[in-house]
Amino acid sequence: MADLDRIKAAALRAKQELDAGNQVVVVLSAMSGVTNMLVEHASAISSLYDAREYDVVVSTGEQVTSGLLAMALQNLGVNARSWLAWQIPIKTDGVHGKARIESIETAELEKRMEKGEIPVIAGFQGLGPDGRITTLGRGGTDTSAIALAAALNAERCDIYTDVDGIYTSDPRIVAKARKLERVTYEEMLEMASVGTKVLQTRAVEMAMKHHVRTQVLSSFKDEPGTLVVNEDEIVEQELVSGIAYSRNEAKITLVKVADKPGVAASIFGPLAEANICVDMIVQNVSEDGANTDLTFTVTKEDLEPAVAVLEEKRAELGFQSLVSDAGVVKISVVGVGMRSHSGVALRMFQTLAENDVNIQVISTSEIKVSVLVAEEYTEMALCALHTAYGLDES
Amino acid sequence: MADLDRIKAAALRAKQELDAGNQVVVVLSAMSGVTNMLVEHASAISSLYDAREYDVVVSTGEQVTSGLLAMALQNLGVNARSWLAWQIPIKTDGVHGKARIESIETAELEKRMEKGEIPVIAGFQGLGPDGRITTLGRGGTDTSAIALAAALNAERCDIYTDVDGIYTSDPRIVAKARKLERVTYEEMLEMASVGTKVLQTRAVEMAMKHHVRTQVLSSFKDEPGTLVVNEDEIVEQELVSGIAYSRNEAKITLVKVADKPGVAASIFGPLAEANICVDMIVQNVSEDGANTDLTFTVTKEDLEPAVAVLEEKRAELGFQSLVSDAGVVKISVVGVGMRSHSGVALRMFQTLAENDVNIQVISTSEIKVSVLVAEEYTEMALCALHTAYGLDES
Repeated sequence: MADLDRIKAAALRAKQELDAGNQVVVVLSAMSGVTNMLVEHASAISSLYDAREYDVVVSTGEQVTSGLLAMALQNLGVNARSWLAWQIPIKTDGVHGKARIESIETAELEKRMEKGEIPVIAGFQGLGPDGRITTLGRGGTDTSAIALAAALNAERCDIYTDVDGIYTSDPRIVAKARKLERVTYEEMLEMASVGTKVLQTRAVEMAMKHHVRTQVLSSFKDEPGTLVVNEDEIVEQELVSGIAYSRNEAKITLVKVADKPGVAASIFGPLAEANICVDMIVQNVSEDGANTDLTFTVTKEDLEPAVAVLEEKRAELGFQSLVSDAGVVKISVVGVGMRSHSGVALRMFQTLAENDVNIQVISTSEIKVSVLVAEEYTEMALCALHTAYGLDES
Repeated sequence: MADLDRIKAAALRAKQELDAGNQVVVVLSAMSGVTNMLVEHASAISSLYDAREYDVVVSTGEQVTSGLLAMALQNLGVNARSWLAWQIPIKTDGVHGKARIESIETAELEKRMEKGEIPVIAGFQGLGPDGRITTLGRGGTDTSAIALAAALNAERCDIYTDVDGIYTSDPRIVAKARKLERVTYEEMLEMASVGTKVLQTRAVEMAMKHHVRTQVLSSFKDEPGTLVVNEDEIVEQELVSGIAYSRNEAKITLVKVADKPGVAASIFGPLAEANICVDMIVQNVSEDGANTDLTFTVTKEDLEPAVAVLEEKRAELGFQSLVSDAGVVKISVVGVGMRSHSGVALRMFQTLAENDVNIQVISTSEIKVSVLVAEEYTEMALCALHTAYGLDES
């Protein structure tokens, strides 16, 4: 019953915040494994299920934990009560299974908080325009918490997770990785896009939009985590905040594709129709002006369906051969500081060259430089870049 | 996943009824073991918990099954949707954990049923006057079903259970026991009070009050069960409908209690304060006019606390000795027919005498005669009485 212990621990945390003179709202996710089990039940009943009934079923996990946490708080002598989305209400659109929050009625919650009560709110759920329960999709409880923090003009939204904060790189690989005190919303978004999925992209976007200062911290350790904030809250901006990586990458090269207008659309159209997301795309300058090589990446699980789609269209697309490689990793250097500093990408390429790491594909955004390299270089590349950008723990 | 199979089977039954031209409402209980697990969670968090939060937690089991059954019906091509108590609403009083239904809004349900839709309703739960979820106490789903049948003026309420009907006696003991086609509400109530807990007393009382024809039948077999009905629906009333028994009995005798006014109150008062229910009570006529022996029964689990309470008050009560015996069984002959026939009790006593079964305590009601006998006679007494009242299967 580790979950019940976590609920008791969460109650204690909330009480400490209250005792420190703060007003507190708690938003709960389900116990670990419960939502997955409910989804399995639904799938076992019917492979094609009504999303409205799915929401009725899968929203119960958070109802249970919110009731239990309210009990745990009362047991500590704190005034608390649970709130389900329909009781507040947290109104959403009608897209069952993936609803978006439209409004939150906070007057009653605020009245009670002023009297020292702690509202305990079931996350992940909302009330649709049809008067039925909606759910917000995976990671929805983070979104609920940040939306409530925004609606209540909260000073801060603390997200308790399995990790104790955001690191300069993966501490399991880079021994000298440091926990960041602060990171910007933009950096969190870029890190999430390359595999560091501490917070769902949607939750970070909402925090950014409503300027909700969000702290990522551990459920298990009693110490500060990492604050996700506006750029102007970071006084001494480092050039690079972190080195992220994603192993879930696969590379496809189409050799000798006809280099003519519309060819890219004719390749990526069918992939999009098959719900395959393409990430990095590189098209080489054509040698002879007639043919070119096109390289792009997909997730490892999309590799096989992507190859199947392309082979099916082979005649139409007219490429000479298709080469695929699942033995690659994407390594990204992320930092809002690179906006105002040149040479960030260059340092990356130099560092990798000094270590004899061959770069296969490069892509850049305003605050990120990503390269695709062979999987076996992951550890070496991460450590070398971590040192090169001065991120090592002193 | 036997529970998921039961949900699919229930969907099929409901569809059959619909296809037969009936309007159908389904009321669901939780999957087996789920409610107990939720109650354990609540107890693990806090031994003294807020009944309002308890209701938030324990009402989720029925929410899950109602969503799943609606999916299963849709999968069979039936229009169906789940309804939670707050959506209908099923309004109750504010006694959380043991609420009573006050009203059910049926207009929307009826409108949809007329169009061939099956409302799938989460049992056991209600909406309290405080706008929060209430629950109806143990066996509450039967109560929900019967209350809905009453509100909808349903022709019949079918209760699917682990047994396939009401028997003249326990078929595990009495080989010749027969399934009854019909039984009256009153008989069901008396049988429930002596251990045949197929339906909760509260549910039967509600069925009786609102004249809801209730069928008890098996979830596993596709055959008619037993109809629980008004007396006037039973054309050929048998003298006795069944022989019930309860092993959960213990006997306490206080020897030589002072035979004076107020002594019964002084004994049963402290027991009531300790939440101990006393069932059969026999006071012998005093030999000398000064002292008497008082015998009564409690449940087996209440025996030890009852003895403790009485020993503590020994000086005050002034009895000579206390004799207790947990090796007893209560056997009851039940039948509305005995109202208009004499000799029912006599036949019971004669039958037991012929079989050398010593009767320790007797109590009677309008439609029931109960005796307390030594536990080892259970099987013999049940079979002999079953034969004596002509209940044996021909």
